[in-house]
Amino acid sequence: MLVDTLSSDSALPVVVTTGEPAGIGPELMLMLAAQGILPAGTVAIGDPDMLRQRAAALGLSVTVIECSPGEYPSGTHGLPVWPVALNEPATPGVLNPANADYVLATLALAVDACQKGQAAAMVTAPLHKGVIIEGGHPAFTGHTEWLRDACGVDEVVMMLATDTALHAASPSWQGSGDLRVALVTTHLPLRNVADAITFERVTRISRLLAADLQRQFGIAKPRIAVCGLNPHAGEDGHLGREELDVIIPALDALRAEGMDILGPLPADTLFTPRHLAGVDAVLAMYHDQGLAVLKYAGFGQAANITLGLPLVRTSVDHGTALDLAGKGVADPGSLNVAIALARRLAARRLSAEI
Amino acid sequence: MLVDTLSSDSALPVVVTTGEPAGIGPELMLMLAAQGILPAGTVAIGDPDMLRQRAAALGLSVTVIECSPGEYPSGTHGLPVWPVALNEPATPGVLNPANADYVLATLALAVDACQKGQAAAMVTAPLHKGVIIEGGHPAFTGHTEWLRDACGVDEVVMMLATDTALHAASPSWQGSGDLRVALVTTHLPLRNVADAITFERVTRISRLLAADLQRQFGIAKPRIAVCGLNPHAGEDGHLGREELDVIIPALDALRAEGMDILGPLPADTLFTPRHLAGVDAVLAMYHDQGLAVLKYAGFGQAANITLGLPLVRTSVDHGTALDLAGKGVADPGSLNVAIALARRLAARRLSAEI
Repeated sequence: MLVDTLSSDSALPVVVTTGEPAGIGPELMLMLAAQGILPAGTVAIGDPDMLRQRAAALGLSVTVIECSPGEYPSGTHGLPVWPVALNEPATPGVLNPANADYVLATLALAVDACQKGQAAAMVTAPLHKGVIIEGGHPAFTGHTEWLRDACGVDEVVMMLATDTALHAASPSWQGSGDLRVALVTTHLPLRNVADAITFERVTRISRLLAADLQRQFGIAKPRIAVCGLNPHAGEDGHLGREELDVIIPALDALRAEGMDILGPLPADTLFTPRHLAGVDAVLAMYHDQGLAVLKYAGFGQAANITLGLPLVRTSVDHGTALDLAGKGVADPGSLNVAIALARRLAARRLSAEI
Repeated sequence: MLVDTLSSDSALPVVVTTGEPAGIGPELMLMLAAQGILPAGTVAIGDPDMLRQRAAALGLSVTVIECSPGEYPSGTHGLPVWPVALNEPATPGVLNPANADYVLATLALAVDACQKGQAAAMVTAPLHKGVIIEGGHPAFTGHTEWLRDACGVDEVVMMLATDTALHAASPSWQGSGDLRVALVTTHLPLRNVADAITFERVTRISRLLAADLQRQFGIAKPRIAVCGLNPHAGEDGHLGREELDVIIPALDALRAEGMDILGPLPADTLFTPRHLAGVDAVLAMYHDQGLAVLKYAGFGQAANITLGLPLVRTSVDHGTALDLAGKGVADPGSLNVAIALARRLAARRLSAEI
């Protein structure tokens, strides 16, 4: 097979880890390829035989093109794949802890390719935390945290964005119905959230968010609206004291540094036109406070961006959907958005570096 | 002035408590009256002089018509008011604990009128919890809880609904973008939420919700989608155990009683078309989990309904907005929706009783 070895001046591919092999990740990638909407220069990472079997089972006409990592075919139609072998065969809908190491190996290959300059960005299809933990990684808490450690940074920020925002000509959102929502805490049991909201954490996450809105999104002076932790943002201490004791002092410190910060605002009124006008991103204190509304607004067309990494990483906004896997009925919209966003962010980073 | 004493066969008025006198409640009511969109048979409860002064200050042409409780004028244009006197003059934007008892007295009058058959339903404009507490009611936690105690019931359920659902010909919502969201816990500091999620509470609230969807909304067999407590609904116990230990057993018990229950589902995927199709109401575990998305969807056109009371009570979906008070710029949309809903629910109850 004719392949081009990537050189530093060619357009680098965006690599997509296909995620949990029992979930919908592999077929979403195949569906995008079969529909002909996968942009040129997109490479999957996963088990090529599994992808071929899944395509055959779903009746998808996709040629899976196995390449060596760092190489990809030019001028062909099909799905280029950098191979990682499954530990055991995968059945849609049936989790197998024996393949936990396979899933992590696909991530490691993607990070390695970005760091070596073989890929412009990485996109991740969903994995299943539970089966990774059961597969011998008890401390595993999610893609985002794993990437933080793999890249050797202290802190990253999880941000989701809806589709129209991603495609808007202006990166600065003006209340048109699109949202960017970043999180102070991510995958914590709810009972542990309040104690995790510290002055140090709120300020650190806010600074990372502002820095990457500038660096990755090109927003000169980002305006960030911040949720309170408690209902009604604590209502002057009557519904919890974290706003008075922690969040307000933290936001005051950030304003003193020159940052444009609104809040803390009650989460149930922040997400209305009056408060969102002119806001570039919302910072929510915890997962469901921010992501329920983001995903309602996004309607399956949102993507996840990890801020604070030395590489560009985006992700789908959904899980493995084991109940849908192998049926060809899952919606590849979020994966499509995540790939498009990764390409755009990578291009912006490249042009900024030049 | 000519007034009709209400008889049992006349249409009873809907009474509206005008809420915190330093907030936007009084002017919202005046704005609806000035715009001529206040339905006939709507009566305000509050201080008539304060309402007159507020109308004059805002340049709103509204005749405030003071009536005795139980009476209201027929055939006149203006705002009928059942009077409750302020303890001290009120200034927009400036809270005064001396008027806490005034606010509670307006509520007591409304409840009394509903119980005596002088009013068909009550609607509440926003109050400010903090100033009620400071005004000598340290145990006050909100309108909804106060009404529960005033009516002598053990438990009520707070539910919010968006506008289009309220106006839909069919009371059963089919995923058209409208939402009804009820809460297992309401005005609790976030750190206390997890311990408040008990088998007993989840089952009791779910039964009350289903019963009032039948009784008040006329939905024969309501389908209720229930959120998990933790991110990703606990992800099989890896992100919290409350789903496994409490919520799943509670929902199984409800299903065994014949209820149509979905979940527990992750809150950040529940609010998408795939899961919401055919759902009559969502039950969220806590305030911001459910209400951020509801109010985003409602866009200022949502109303609050208290289920489980022996009277019909609706409310606005927003707070006192002290920063807007006295300016005439607040949006009376939610109050308008709340009044319309109260009238519809009261009419349904009346026809069901006949």
